[in-house]
Amino acid sequence: MSAAPHIVVLSGGVGGARFTRGLLHHLHAAYPDGVGGTAARMTVIANTGDDAWVAGVRVCPDLDSITYTLAGISDDERGWGRRDESERVSAELAAYGVGWPWFTLGDLDLGTCIARAAWLREGVGLGEITRRITDRWGVDIQLLPATEHEAETLVRLDDDTEIHFEEWWVRYRAKRPALAFRQENIDEATPAPGVLDAIANADTIIIAPSNPVVSIGTITGFSGPGGSVPGIPGIRDAVLASSAAVVGVAPIIGGAAVRGMAEACLAPLGVETSAAAVARAHGSRLSGGLLDAWLVDDADAASAGDTGVPTRARPLWFTSVDETAAIAADALELAESVRR
Amino acid sequence: MSAAPHIVVLSGGVGGARFTRGLLHHLHAAYPDGVGGTAARMTVIANTGDDAWVAGVRVCPDLDSITYTLAGISDDERGWGRRDESERVSAELAAYGVGWPWFTLGDLDLGTCIARAAWLREGVGLGEITRRITDRWGVDIQLLPATEHEAETLVRLDDDTEIHFEEWWVRYRAKRPALAFRQENIDEATPAPGVLDAIANADTIIIAPSNPVVSIGTITGFSGPGGSVPGIPGIRDAVLASSAAVVGVAPIIGGAAVRGMAEACLAPLGVETSAAAVARAHGSRLSGGLLDAWLVDDADAASAGDTGVPTRARPLWFTSVDETAAIAADALELAESVRR
Repeated sequence: MSAAPHIVVLSGGVGGARFTRGLLHHLHAAYPDGVGGTAARMTVIANTGDDAWVAGVRVCPDLDSITYTLAGISDDERGWGRRDESERVSAELAAYGVGWPWFTLGDLDLGTCIARAAWLREGVGLGEITRRITDRWGVDIQLLPATEHEAETLVRLDDDTEIHFEEWWVRYRAKRPALAFRQENIDEATPAPGVLDAIANADTIIIAPSNPVVSIGTITGFSGPGGSVPGIPGIRDAVLASSAAVVGVAPIIGGAAVRGMAEACLAPLGVETSAAAVARAHGSRLSGGLLDAWLVDDADAASAGDTGVPTRARPLWFTSVDETAAIAADALELAESVRR
Repeated sequence: MSAAPHIVVLSGGVGGARFTRGLLHHLHAAYPDGVGGTAARMTVIANTGDDAWVAGVRVCPDLDSITYTLAGISDDERGWGRRDESERVSAELAAYGVGWPWFTLGDLDLGTCIARAAWLREGVGLGEITRRITDRWGVDIQLLPATEHEAETLVRLDDDTEIHFEEWWVRYRAKRPALAFRQENIDEATPAPGVLDAIANADTIIIAPSNPVVSIGTITGFSGPGGSVPGIPGIRDAVLASSAAVVGVAPIIGGAAVRGMAEACLAPLGVETSAAAVARAHGSRLSGGLLDAWLVDDADAASAGDTGVPTRARPLWFTSVDETAAIAADALELAESVRR
């Protein structure tokens, strides 16, 4: 049996977390001798644009969604946070008028956010903090923040105010039209320790089926005719320079976002909400874009012809962990088929 | 009916909080028309030497004990914190190795500490923060921290290390012999806004039956032949300059501390654990000390003769709120009897 390839996944929160769980499930089955060493063979680079200081604690929704999902402690029914949650502290904070009243942190989740804030104030980097958190939960992959800088995503509204991404997403459910997205302090941001190495040493890079603008674009950059997000400086170039096969898994099925509210994010950039339009925006590596290949749902097979990116179709609904593992396996196989 | 006198109480945590509840109970009964204005007539100045940053949140045990007790939400059986508590967040922090594993904050209590830390980081003073917290709970007295500076009490041990008071008190239950107490940054500390005014305008000042060294001494200063704590600069002088009658309620009954571990605090200063010895250490105002009068338990009546402080005896056990109110009423009457 051959050694497991080194796989790097670029991921947002919930959708990416579930994809990652399926991929890990597949790898454990495909490389049973490699389970102990899976950490060295699988790296997830997570979006940190959603991160926020709330009531003095540091919230990193995507990093924690991935950790909780891989650790088997996520609340899959609700779609975020930990199972068996309670919200006693958040109720107190709301009564004191501290924090965001529309942003409820569960007590268990808050434990993670308090620990992270305490470590950050001690000067520990977010990468090392993430290692401590995944270690506690026995998560045997390498989970890296895209950056240790606070490059949070801001949303410009049609009244020309700018609000934190979480406010737009959670408070307004992305119903207030966005004019543009901005990554705060992005010029000073650099990839977190390990990110460029992981990309340089990857055999396969998978773009998880996460929001292409505010989850993936904030890592790699994403442009449309109407606007763009720059991504973390250096990451896109590293992916372009990598010898890895880069496969994207479409986050849109038949014009609907699988999870989240993709259309509200794509429209301001002038990108249609379709798998093909997202592939075109990512671009083919043959013409300076990101993608060597693109995995879409059967529903989008017909419209995949004109993207310039080799595309394969299969059902993409995450109906179970086994089915998600099969999707991940197909993504890996697709990567093999296009490997240069 | 005459207007309620303006009463200032100097207080530590649990014992002082219960005394304060009894006093407020008495005042509400004695001055029924004055209930709405009780806030203007009763000020509690609380010790802040026990305060600590724990996992990035600000813990103020004495301030919160007083608030919770007056609000009727304290856990009187356990003796600290809030009723109906849970410790879900603390369990998470312990699992992450963040904070003090021997110092468990309840979830509801943590809500207060997170709110306070968030406000402090916004630059709000501890006095205003305390007002916000008491306001939430409808506590109709003025509760002031002795200082807004972080003048935390440190304990020097016989191995010449120095630890935070909370570590000595909670982790070691004061079982490790203390050589001395120190108030950190005490030279820079000043009384919190309102403290000197409250003292200057007081009709009666009551020293609550709190630990004379680490709860009262850290406010007013306290000296014995073996050592001293300086108190918050300015507060002792203000009490000495006040025209108020100053009455102390003995925290020792028959040689045993009513609550807490007074002996472990008095011994390093060379002060015997008795009501009379504490009165002598406070000193009579006639000879430059703090006390105009001293209220002791019947068990200590016989030994009260040689303190130089006018002393009255009555049962001092807080067997109920009504009984505590009667003790407080006697303290006020004692103040009237010695008023100059």
